[in-house]
Amino acid sequence: MNILIIGTGAIGGFYGSLLAKQGATVSVLARSDYAQVRAHGIHIRSAVPAVGDYHFRPARVVRSALELDEKPDYVLLCVKVVAGADRAALLKDALGPATRIVLVSNGVEIEDEIAAAYPDHALISGLAFICVTRTAPGEIWHQAYGRLALGDYPRGVSPATLALCQAFEGSGIPCATSEDVVGARWQKCVWNAAFSPLSVLSGGLDTHAILDTAEPLVRAIMAETILISNALGHPLPTDMVEKQVSSTRKMPPYKTSMLLDHEAGRPMETEAILGNAVRAGQRLGLDVPHLATLYGLMRLVEARAASH
Amino acid sequence: MNILIIGTGAIGGFYGSLLAKQGATVSVLARSDYAQVRAHGIHIRSAVPAVGDYHFRPARVVRSALELDEKPDYVLLCVKVVAGADRAALLKDALGPATRIVLVSNGVEIEDEIAAAYPDHALISGLAFICVTRTAPGEIWHQAYGRLALGDYPRGVSPATLALCQAFEGSGIPCATSEDVVGARWQKCVWNAAFSPLSVLSGGLDTHAILDTAEPLVRAIMAETILISNALGHPLPTDMVEKQVSSTRKMPPYKTSMLLDHEAGRPMETEAILGNAVRAGQRLGLDVPHLATLYGLMRLVEARAASH
Repeated sequence: MNILIIGTGAIGGFYGSLLAKQGATVSVLARSDYAQVRAHGIHIRSAVPAVGDYHFRPARVVRSALELDEKPDYVLLCVKVVAGADRAALLKDALGPATRIVLVSNGVEIEDEIAAAYPDHALISGLAFICVTRTAPGEIWHQAYGRLALGDYPRGVSPATLALCQAFEGSGIPCATSEDVVGARWQKCVWNAAFSPLSVLSGGLDTHAILDTAEPLVRAIMAETILISNALGHPLPTDMVEKQVSSTRKMPPYKTSMLLDHEAGRPMETEAILGNAVRAGQRLGLDVPHLATLYGLMRLVEARAASH
Repeated sequence: MNILIIGTGAIGGFYGSLLAKQGATVSVLARSDYAQVRAHGIHIRSAVPAVGDYHFRPARVVRSALELDEKPDYVLLCVKVVAGADRAALLKDALGPATRIVLVSNGVEIEDEIAAAYPDHALISGLAFICVTRTAPGEIWHQAYGRLALGDYPRGVSPATLALCQAFEGSGIPCATSEDVVGARWQKCVWNAAFSPLSVLSGGLDTHAILDTAEPLVRAIMAETILISNALGHPLPTDMVEKQVSSTRKMPPYKTSMLLDHEAGRPMETEAILGNAVRAGQRLGLDVPHLATLYGLMRLVEARAASH
């Protein structure tokens, strides 16, 4: 199995390393980390014993997919969906006639742009449930979790998707296929649409502090997100709000990745999570004022950050 | 006319000084600024030529109203309405049988607490449209505007209110009476409920930057505030949103006083502006999700500030 990872941040480096460890031929297309990764590969440290500490030496480290001798079976696009990023352009030189595109990123309704640009390619949509950070060029720290969910876009599980999932077997990290990966995105978005902007807009509160002061607001945001998902034909269980609130209370308090991005001055996934949710709601004629307010505020925070 | 000012911040010091300049006997009850004001009075510098630069030497500077030889005709309570402040207690020792209570502060529905505590006293509600700051103990800088609106609570204009208004004549600052001062509060709140929280939650944007990025959100918040005011029997003109947006664009860009409070680590008027508006909306059975979202977020910002 021949794989190209585009983006050697935490997500791309980590999942690429797992596939390599299990025997796949994994090359990486690197940008800012190119020199370091080319010379030394990527070092992974994990708090999960089944994953452990190890070194990932990619088959090839390239700056452009044109440098590769053959086109990959799968290209994993592991870049954040942020305003101004041209994801379709990143894929252009990597695709052979049979190459499957795999999107591993947060957010909802992030597939259409790629499906429209490459209508003849199989498109696999992926969600990572993980705490992982890039601590330095070529250094990845895996703190917790890691489950990957993969499914065909817009729906179903093809043999190629199943095969990719199976390639993770034995890596210490579970990969599950999803017949309705779009619904899985909405399900993840229910949590993200509430906690991610609230952590940023509050000025840096963790998940528990948010619930202690604003649980009714968290619930109202979750309910609106569920409303959209249901209207789109991806029904979510009615007790989902209850479950997400109580499981968040049971988990240790933590800062969302959107907050960490904001504090580090990196772009945030505002459009992928909130912007796309609000646009979906409006397209469907739904009233989503809590989400719309958060989206407007996050755009103000981004305007403020851009003016500094 | 014998007047006691409670609170020698920017608002109390400024309006008290105007009344003294026009011939009233004005004493002040000071807390943190007591020593400075007792020894040196208050110095006012104004960017408005008709006001000018001058010195205000109060008739008496006291720490407690019990130190006064006689009860005042009017007591002006010039403190911000913030969570945890017991405003009724501040008035307790200042009231003789004929003393009128004058509230000069921001927010909506801030009168009931005082009316309930002192049902036998005339209650005058006042709104200041002004940019004024206390730059140091005993130092006030008047940047712009200054119009004061006074009316009886809950409605009407009594001779005593008119007399207080007339006492400002010649001071360089206009005072107008309002037959519906509660409606005037809601009218001011339409602007405040939008720009004040947005300036804080955006991380510090001025009025123009807010409009450049989030004008639809500003309009939605204003519309909800108007909805509440109308339901309470204080109808606001339908083109008010339009007028407030265009007048804010015409004024120079500026930071709201709530943002200045937040940046200086002072308590914010969240409850007086947003909390009371949301509670009024809920009491009336109105749907005010934009205001509710902002209120929840502002409470998170306050929780974050309190944890530092």
